[in-house]
Amino acid sequence: MEKISNSDDYRTNKFSKYLRKFQVPHTLELERGETLEEVIIAYETYGEINSDKSNCILVCHAITGDSHVAKHDEDDLPGWWDIMVGPNKPIDTNKYFVICSNVLGSCRGTTGPNSVNPKTSQYYANDFPVVTIKDMVKVQKILVESLGIKQLLGVVGGSLGGFQCLEWATEYPEMIKACLPIASSPRLTTQGLAFDVVARNAIISDPNFNSGNYYDYEKKPDVGLALARMLGHITYLSKESMNEKFEIDRNNPRDISTSFEKKFSVGSYLAYQGERFVERFDANSYITLSTALDLFDLGNEKTTLRKNLSNSKCKWMIISFSSDWLYPPYQSIDIVDALLSESKNVSYCNIESNSGHDAFLLSADIESYGEITKSFFANIFEKEPKNIKKEISSKKVKIGLTNRIDFKYISNLIPKQSKILDLGCENGELIKSLSQYGFKSALGVEINQSNVIECISDDLQIIHSNLDKILPKFYDGQFDVAILSQTLQSIKNVEIILKEMTRVAKYSIVSFPNFAFKPMREMFFNEGKAPRVEGWYGYNWYDTPNVRFPSIDDFVEFCEEKNIQINKSLYLDTVNNKEIKKDPNLNADSAIFLIS
Amino acid sequence: MEKISNSDDYRTNKFSKYLRKFQVPHTLELERGETLEEVIIAYETYGEINSDKSNCILVCHAITGDSHVAKHDEDDLPGWWDIMVGPNKPIDTNKYFVICSNVLGSCRGTTGPNSVNPKTSQYYANDFPVVTIKDMVKVQKILVESLGIKQLLGVVGGSLGGFQCLEWATEYPEMIKACLPIASSPRLTTQGLAFDVVARNAIISDPNFNSGNYYDYEKKPDVGLALARMLGHITYLSKESMNEKFEIDRNNPRDISTSFEKKFSVGSYLAYQGERFVERFDANSYITLSTALDLFDLGNEKTTLRKNLSNSKCKWMIISFSSDWLYPPYQSIDIVDALLSESKNVSYCNIESNSGHDAFLLSADIESYGEITKSFFANIFEKEPKNIKKEISSKKVKIGLTNRIDFKYISNLIPKQSKILDLGCENGELIKSLSQYGFKSALGVEINQSNVIECISDDLQIIHSNLDKILPKFYDGQFDVAILSQTLQSIKNVEIILKEMTRVAKYSIVSFPNFAFKPMREMFFNEGKAPRVEGWYGYNWYDTPNVRFPSIDDFVEFCEEKNIQINKSLYLDTVNNKEIKKDPNLNADSAIFLIS
Repeated sequence: MEKISNSDDYRTNKFSKYLRKFQVPHTLELERGETLEEVIIAYETYGEINSDKSNCILVCHAITGDSHVAKHDEDDLPGWWDIMVGPNKPIDTNKYFVICSNVLGSCRGTTGPNSVNPKTSQYYANDFPVVTIKDMVKVQKILVESLGIKQLLGVVGGSLGGFQCLEWATEYPEMIKACLPIASSPRLTTQGLAFDVVARNAIISDPNFNSGNYYDYEKKPDVGLALARMLGHITYLSKESMNEKFEIDRNNPRDISTSFEKKFSVGSYLAYQGERFVERFDANSYITLSTALDLFDLGNEKTTLRKNLSNSKCKWMIISFSSDWLYPPYQSIDIVDALLSESKNVSYCNIESNSGHDAFLLSADIESYGEITKSFFANIFEKEPKNIKKEISSKKVKIGLTNRIDFKYISNLIPKQSKILDLGCENGELIKSLSQYGFKSALGVEINQSNVIECISDDLQIIHSNLDKILPKFYDGQFDVAILSQTLQSIKNVEIILKEMTRVAKYSIVSFPNFAFKPMREMFFNEGKAPRVEGWYGYNWYDTPNVRFPSIDDFVEFCEEKNIQINKSLYLDTVNNKEIKKDPNLNADSAIFLIS
Repeated sequence: MEKISNSDDYRTNKFSKYLRKFQVPHTLELERGETLEEVIIAYETYGEINSDKSNCILVCHAITGDSHVAKHDEDDLPGWWDIMVGPNKPIDTNKYFVICSNVLGSCRGTTGPNSVNPKTSQYYANDFPVVTIKDMVKVQKILVESLGIKQLLGVVGGSLGGFQCLEWATEYPEMIKACLPIASSPRLTTQGLAFDVVARNAIISDPNFNSGNYYDYEKKPDVGLALARMLGHITYLSKESMNEKFEIDRNNPRDISTSFEKKFSVGSYLAYQGERFVERFDANSYITLSTALDLFDLGNEKTTLRKNLSNSKCKWMIISFSSDWLYPPYQSIDIVDALLSESKNVSYCNIESNSGHDAFLLSADIESYGEITKSFFANIFEKEPKNIKKEISSKKVKIGLTNRIDFKYISNLIPKQSKILDLGCENGELIKSLSQYGFKSALGVEINQSNVIECISDDLQIIHSNLDKILPKFYDGQFDVAILSQTLQSIKNVEIILKEMTRVAKYSIVSFPNFAFKPMREMFFNEGKAPRVEGWYGYNWYDTPNVRFPSIDDFVEFCEEKNIQINKSLYLDTVNNKEIKKDPNLNADSAIFLIS
């Protein structure tokens, strides 16, 4: 029987007419020592490459994806990321030249186990070598170079696609300007690994698997592959999204024909998904790719992870999803932390989402992760530096808030070329203001998602986290100056945060509204009511974001008790725009301390 | 071939010599209409039954468990709950008569698919009917009655065992005094259901399954059953506990012989567990029992759940584990909420644990759940009411804290025979004090686990939760009086909590330390430091548990603004043990408001 060429899927032939093939012009040497001849790469491109080839973005697909990231025109087959890629989409094909190739080892056009081995004229089947993410990226690099591209604007992808992004940044640091791994991790959790093990065991135990040699037989290991797919599906969804989908008709299986159990709504859905999957995917490829996923390992220890990420040169943006339990957010934070330790330019956002790991493929959260993706690439592509000096209002009505003369004083305390950490940076106003005076780098930490997205859009380096979680991750003296600007009064663990600040930065600047400011004292003494002054202390007692009410004297006493050295202190009357020298605890509405 | 009697496991014969058999003396009618003849129940008992048969506890096992809950003597086989059941253990067999029977449909001695059908003299195999939790409990009830027991002191069990507890309480309400479901739920989540579906599909797709008729063949559906077990194992562990176990040697599979993949540490573990499991468990039983689990359904809606739990008469204790993602804590809270809505006596504790669903089988958290179990049964068994009136100190040194004269005033505001809700009840001091004056019921809500365990030990009804989560679950007017005693200053969402209180109770009592108390004002005005007075406001500004600082006037103004009616107010000088009438905002150190 003549073997079918690998230019077609061996069971169906649903490919876009825009799919192109490229043959690697030499023997491909793989990470684990084996070689492959005449490797074919299936790929598609979107948009036009510009004259200096500076607008190229490589999109990397997940385990069962392929090169067809988006439809090329209205008549084309739907793409797997149509919400993200296309004209006027976040990855705008009117602006960018987008490349997407099917990964090595897959069955969607690129050489994989179901391809014919030119050396033997037989299907590779179980002779197909173990391939790694490194091998996949190596093939992509050959393709990119064949298109005459010396440097990509960026790489982006979710899940297995995220692993490819991480590999690109570390293996070919000169070749990418920007890296955006979504729903990714340094390596799978043991739990994720365990699910993959069970899935592969289901496939290899299928009697039709025949040690991988089933291409010449009518019966394929469809049952095992379908079981693997069912299991995968569960892990891609969140508990919440599964409930939303299937609780309404829990006990009513959909009317499908299946050889699997047909007892519950979710059961019939899984059976259907499993059985459809085998029509478009090959069991050997599933084993090959899930093994590649499992072998990917940037390290579990911070030191290993740092080492593995150390030679990256790109700008980084990391995105995770709150309900993703397969690639849980804390793993993205580990990457962010390691990159920061290596002084890389990285921002991070953990998108609040109900959709689980699949969130990056769904439209529910596209407004947030789409916006971030758009800003991230645009800020690199449109090289003209943005004018980030926002007009600072000079209206003199409230303490703090509008007349931020404290920014000027803070900037005077910061040596030029400092590495700055701004804790609770909100929309980045202080960092933008400081940028007038010059710094080496400035990293913001902020808990509010829309503030984070605004910072990213303004091209500020920002970490989406609360202070308690992120500070312990930084190493001693990682920053020159840590700033806690008008945030002290809203954090509960004052002592821990201040100790951590003084640990991670050589100097710390703490500014806060002085609770013992005269009008506050008078109001409390005379009226016996929780004092309010418009501005930082302009809230009701019952819904103020403030939970701590420090006075200048309180803070000084605290520093003495805790052996924190006060190097400098400044007391301000922000309403009248002046410094206070006399009895500041009574006369100043706010204070700035430089401590260490 | 002669069929082997069901008194032995069909593949191995590892049973304790203490295992006993009981035959149901009549035809067993099942929930779904079918019948079973000559049903055998395998069971074991521990300890001695007392003269009035009031010391009997039934332990219900999980899906793969059996009647051998604990070893009977040193030479006996290990039991599956040796940490919990035995002399001087939490379920003390020196005190209680403990019964544990293998569930209907299992393969560990009780009639199941691998038993011989007396009507046909063939194995039941796929003729074995669908059994439900109701059927399992029905058989247990027949057994219990055969032992001459009219009422059980209690039933306890985790997972499937928890489902049996729920069924006992609702199906035979007169027959149990106490019910303790652990790591349980009203019904499986869709996610849990989906895992079961995949597990069963793995079994039924195994070619050796032969539609369930495999007992006469050498080859059994071992591969499918092993896959099911592997999958189950993952869901029983938490992400954290899997990492702890397998990250250290992630890439080093243990040296076992297996036909499954042997690539990672966790992979070899799962292969081993899967392959050992088939030696002691029957595939048809696994299908039977997991189907019973999946069909168990007390309802997803509060109204249905309430209805289904409404006829229970026992005292309830519900335990969940924080890292259990198969039976997540929120599902236990749903049960608690429904029971409360039906005015049942229920307490709840969510044990902080890393061990996932399996936590109830492991020793790591035995100190907490063991202690609760012990107290819960002891408080019912030892009928003499405990002296819960603790000595109330009369030292007069601090505002509040030691001299709780406020308790007396609060008690005067509460009509006799009230249903009381005490929010933030700490170790239950107020409830204990109020019990002197008489109430219909008193429910405490508390966030701290050791406080919760202390309350349970003192036989108080207590819910382990924060206020924001539990209050929205209560229905309008569910309580007569809600109390927020000295807690207002430590909650952030003051407005929401107060609105919820006035919604769920006819009257609410709010007591708090008056921040505008004269010494506080003077200290702040004169010294300009965050005011401190020993007692409720005796903390440092930077680590006080207080985050709100209400004065009497502030609170009154707040009530006016929010249309909350103040029915009565009392102002106290707790140091001098007297009521303050004149200018309370200045002179009272604390206040008590009755609002609605």
